[in-house]
Amino acid sequence: MDYPLLSSIIVPEALKKLPQDKWAELIEEVRTCITESVKKNGGHLGPNLGAVEIIFACHMVFNLNQDRLLFDVGHQCYAHKILTCRYREFNRLRQKNGLSGYPYKKESDYDVFRGGHASTAISTALGMRCGFDFDKDQTKKFVVSLVGDGAMTGGMAFEALNHAGHIKNNLIVILNDNSMSISPTIGGLAKALNNFRHNQFYTHLKKGLIDRLKKIPKLGHKLEFMVNLTLEEASRIASPAQLFTVLGFDYMGPINGNDVHEVISTLKAAKKVKVKPVLIHALTQKGIGFRPHGKNGETIIGPHALSPPKAKIKSDKSPMLSYSVTAVDVLKQLCKKNEKVITITAAMAEGTGLNKFEEVFPHRYFDVGICEAHAVGFSAGLAASGLKPIFMVYSTFLQRAFDQIFHELVLQQNIPTIFCIDRAGLVGDDGPSHHGSYDIAYLRIFPNFVLMAPKDGEDLKNMIAFATQLNTMVAIRYPRSSIPDRNYFKKNYKKSQKLILGKSEVLFKTKDKKGICLYAYGSMVIEASKAWKMLAEDGIHVTLVNARFAKPIDVGTLRRLYSQHQSLIVLEEGIKRGGLGSAVLEELNRLGLDTGKVLVKGLPDQLVEHASRQEQLQECGLDSRSIVKSVKLIKKKLANKRKK
Amino acid sequence: MDYPLLSSIIVPEALKKLPQDKWAELIEEVRTCITESVKKNGGHLGPNLGAVEIIFACHMVFNLNQDRLLFDVGHQCYAHKILTCRYREFNRLRQKNGLSGYPYKKESDYDVFRGGHASTAISTALGMRCGFDFDKDQTKKFVVSLVGDGAMTGGMAFEALNHAGHIKNNLIVILNDNSMSISPTIGGLAKALNNFRHNQFYTHLKKGLIDRLKKIPKLGHKLEFMVNLTLEEASRIASPAQLFTVLGFDYMGPINGNDVHEVISTLKAAKKVKVKPVLIHALTQKGIGFRPHGKNGETIIGPHALSPPKAKIKSDKSPMLSYSVTAVDVLKQLCKKNEKVITITAAMAEGTGLNKFEEVFPHRYFDVGICEAHAVGFSAGLAASGLKPIFMVYSTFLQRAFDQIFHELVLQQNIPTIFCIDRAGLVGDDGPSHHGSYDIAYLRIFPNFVLMAPKDGEDLKNMIAFATQLNTMVAIRYPRSSIPDRNYFKKNYKKSQKLILGKSEVLFKTKDKKGICLYAYGSMVIEASKAWKMLAEDGIHVTLVNARFAKPIDVGTLRRLYSQHQSLIVLEEGIKRGGLGSAVLEELNRLGLDTGKVLVKGLPDQLVEHASRQEQLQECGLDSRSIVKSVKLIKKKLANKRKK
Repeated sequence: MDYPLLSSIIVPEALKKLPQDKWAELIEEVRTCITESVKKNGGHLGPNLGAVEIIFACHMVFNLNQDRLLFDVGHQCYAHKILTCRYREFNRLRQKNGLSGYPYKKESDYDVFRGGHASTAISTALGMRCGFDFDKDQTKKFVVSLVGDGAMTGGMAFEALNHAGHIKNNLIVILNDNSMSISPTIGGLAKALNNFRHNQFYTHLKKGLIDRLKKIPKLGHKLEFMVNLTLEEASRIASPAQLFTVLGFDYMGPINGNDVHEVISTLKAAKKVKVKPVLIHALTQKGIGFRPHGKNGETIIGPHALSPPKAKIKSDKSPMLSYSVTAVDVLKQLCKKNEKVITITAAMAEGTGLNKFEEVFPHRYFDVGICEAHAVGFSAGLAASGLKPIFMVYSTFLQRAFDQIFHELVLQQNIPTIFCIDRAGLVGDDGPSHHGSYDIAYLRIFPNFVLMAPKDGEDLKNMIAFATQLNTMVAIRYPRSSIPDRNYFKKNYKKSQKLILGKSEVLFKTKDKKGICLYAYGSMVIEASKAWKMLAEDGIHVTLVNARFAKPIDVGTLRRLYSQHQSLIVLEEGIKRGGLGSAVLEELNRLGLDTGKVLVKGLPDQLVEHASRQEQLQECGLDSRSIVKSVKLIKKKLANKRKK
Repeated sequence: MDYPLLSSIIVPEALKKLPQDKWAELIEEVRTCITESVKKNGGHLGPNLGAVEIIFACHMVFNLNQDRLLFDVGHQCYAHKILTCRYREFNRLRQKNGLSGYPYKKESDYDVFRGGHASTAISTALGMRCGFDFDKDQTKKFVVSLVGDGAMTGGMAFEALNHAGHIKNNLIVILNDNSMSISPTIGGLAKALNNFRHNQFYTHLKKGLIDRLKKIPKLGHKLEFMVNLTLEEASRIASPAQLFTVLGFDYMGPINGNDVHEVISTLKAAKKVKVKPVLIHALTQKGIGFRPHGKNGETIIGPHALSPPKAKIKSDKSPMLSYSVTAVDVLKQLCKKNEKVITITAAMAEGTGLNKFEEVFPHRYFDVGICEAHAVGFSAGLAASGLKPIFMVYSTFLQRAFDQIFHELVLQQNIPTIFCIDRAGLVGDDGPSHHGSYDIAYLRIFPNFVLMAPKDGEDLKNMIAFATQLNTMVAIRYPRSSIPDRNYFKKNYKKSQKLILGKSEVLFKTKDKKGICLYAYGSMVIEASKAWKMLAEDGIHVTLVNARFAKPIDVGTLRRLYSQHQSLIVLEEGIKRGGLGSAVLEELNRLGLDTGKVLVKGLPDQLVEHASRQEQLQECGLDSRSIVKSVKLIKKKLANKRKK
């Protein structure tokens, strides 16, 4: 693909010299570059296409080698990457060693904060703004944050707006309002934004009133002043401006965020406001200019046709039957039998598959918006009213409700709530902001939590049903991957064992008296089983255990396995520090047993960069081949030891 | 103390039968009961005195054995406890086996959710509201949450308001606005509330305008309608009502929250609103009716005289020189030398002692309000601008920023930020909501974090200075207790060793070849040292190590100690699961060493109820006497083993 204008821009600052009559062409090139890459590599198409003009305008108005532009989440940063001389690498977006799908400082100094989670950029921008104000040389730098309307429902955004309104300096916040976050935006604020878009009632009201009052000949001076003052304020009524002005912001807008000239002139006006933070309310069309058939195609698809599931064109390489889809199918079945079951999502209806649940049980479903903290508090309330809430959430986003899990659930001691933790483990191309690395480690520290992970669809089904029977908090984690074939485990091992609290399932027991035991949790069971097969082909017969529970762990079985094997390998798709492996070490230690023959394999104490999930598993030594290698290495060591 | 009216109320519902002319007397009894207990046991006086009328009114208007009243934080629940027949036990507030200082369901069914952390009650109330709506028998129940203005700055409160505005049912939120949370409330919202209290400009404006317009004789019908409509809306201008109405709430107020009759009539009006959530804005006086000299004393102290540090009369039993005070002294010294140092608190200026810092360096200090998530994002921004932010925070409240620590710091890889974690470990009378049990476990799972804990003031000083030199995230934890005497360790052991990254300090090395090693972290060093003394008196000489680091841990020293001792006892004032002990087990396991001779002593996998910190340490086996017992028990076991 040729990008004549983009390739003419050697440094981002050169953009400012581009003649105005070339702007549209450049913007077109940016859009093509985005579309081509996303078609190939996946990623977020709609929001990125919608934000091109805003980002172009920021580059024209600010000196972004000095001023700072911070992206919230980063679903809107593609045009920024392209305009900062990364268009050549853009076709390797989200690939191993290619560009990250989010802002990333290691790629470019024009990326200030690495993104991925929502509602954070006003906080970090305000911090930078206040920080710059301590240094004479930096006071004049502008700090701008670009935030989507979905992210505005996150409490942290409100906290930052509230603080910014108090501090009163020239922070600039651009609200990119495309009326849809990943799921359609939820909440009173979204409604207010929406009303404002469609209802110009009060604007007309004001205009009509002024026109009529002007016709009254003898209005006294004071009255005229009062009318003007009152109406100036009244013009803001029924607009989201209220929210921001109450908090101390200067509100500008709404403007057409896809009109470069309007955005540029508004940004210039915002730069002049010195003693107040400014919020620019820009309305944009998600997916604007999308030509699915390439540069010369004629079809231009509007934002509504580009509905969210399609917007992320290549959302997942996994085949149809993923853990997510299966979990939702199970929930649908369960819901027919159990009228207490309620599902909750925090703006992740498509990602978790819960939109398919909503189609069947719209009244047993809550989308609370991007606000996991509230989602957990809300679930606690539902549980306290006697229902069985099931919060479907990505592992990485559940981190945002860590304290609510403690305070609204654990501390209460009698609030049974269920978490279906999706994307637990490595997530592939979204990279480290999205890995579900920590949930085992951070949930098992809380008393009375039950932690489970299924090896396949049957386990998942049983675990969800089982969770609704327990009178405590339960988390069931599953990976971003396809689910093993229905008959895979039945075919290879004996009949599956019944699900019992705190009991693991021994799939195969070796007769080798110098044998090795694979103690695998959740997504690791299939990898361990593949390794088991390969090893069997080489004449090495290892024991294979489906751990099922990370809390309470199966101390009885562990103790037995420990005494019957020369080596016990714990496998988990979670951070090694503090994870299931540590739990095993703790329990064995508590029993007074030595742990020298335990090997823990999990995620390392470092970030795992974007690549495919399989590449990442390999990198972490958690794919079947790596497991085979580990087993063989241990075998060799044990044999050497015996020789000595 | 006699409480004739309180004692006449056998069940809370009987309150409704109390003749109106007795109300004032009852309220007086409640206030006396609160004051007497807080004078004796400590607790939150100001907010509880201010909320008496609101709570009384709730009991009069609602059927609280059916309807639900949820308290945010719980700093305002004392009158509720007293009115629900717990006045007799109220003199044992916050004592071991006495009443909790927060709502607690185990005490009474009238307590719905256990409290302690802020900004949560609108979420849980909304969950209950939605839950009740699923059940015909419960639809008519009212759900009310009482929230302070300080808690409104927390993002979770905003998330819940936003969701409630979307859902549209009859949730009732009472905003108890005493214009001061624990620290004076921060932020744009607080300013708006404040402006509203003191500035009636627009109300006058409106009235004046209407009066004058009325004098114009021939206003057309349409114009009159328009004026009324416009002005009706205009009357809300510059009021916090905007914030709530934008989100979809019906706003009632502001009312005098210390006028029982006004509160009752407003609550009755709120009950009638069916299709919308209602926010009642009640202005109250913190500390109203406080008579420091008892029931017959004459002095009535207003809210401002009752400034926050005094409001919590018996805030801490520890002597003057606490860790908190010392930390702030160190910061003041450091600030003189290092102009990059900036301090941040989330509405805990008094608790952390940072108010004393602000007095000297007001421009190097930020109080962001009750919003730890934003505080961490804000700190990240400050760090990114080149400053050295130090966030002073209670361990339990830092939990609220768990994901921000990951996303705004860990993920960025180059954002050095320092956390001074106060109240790390057991906190005494505030109980389990306030224990700092989890910080070691949940921070050590993140890459590149440095975790330290000082044994005394000298360590603390060195650690803070050292932290500013490191180019990564650092957390320094210290307990809610007095700091060991300056010369304590010098007197008892050889000269202290220099602070080196990842190195522990061996205070005493036993010559006993069958010896035991105490590997103590932070606050446990003084307990271990006391045990060491007692043991020495009995002729048992143990090795004593000040671990200093929980990450990176001192593998070299550990390995040496491991080989030189018969037993290694790890001592930590943090949760045992996933804590420092687990880190030690992990490292020894990684080295291929057996861990049978390691004993981990830390906080148990259950909630530790309110009592004094010393009682709690004892309960958990972490006081010096318990350590002595453990050592002697191991000695005995080892001796028995040798005999066999």
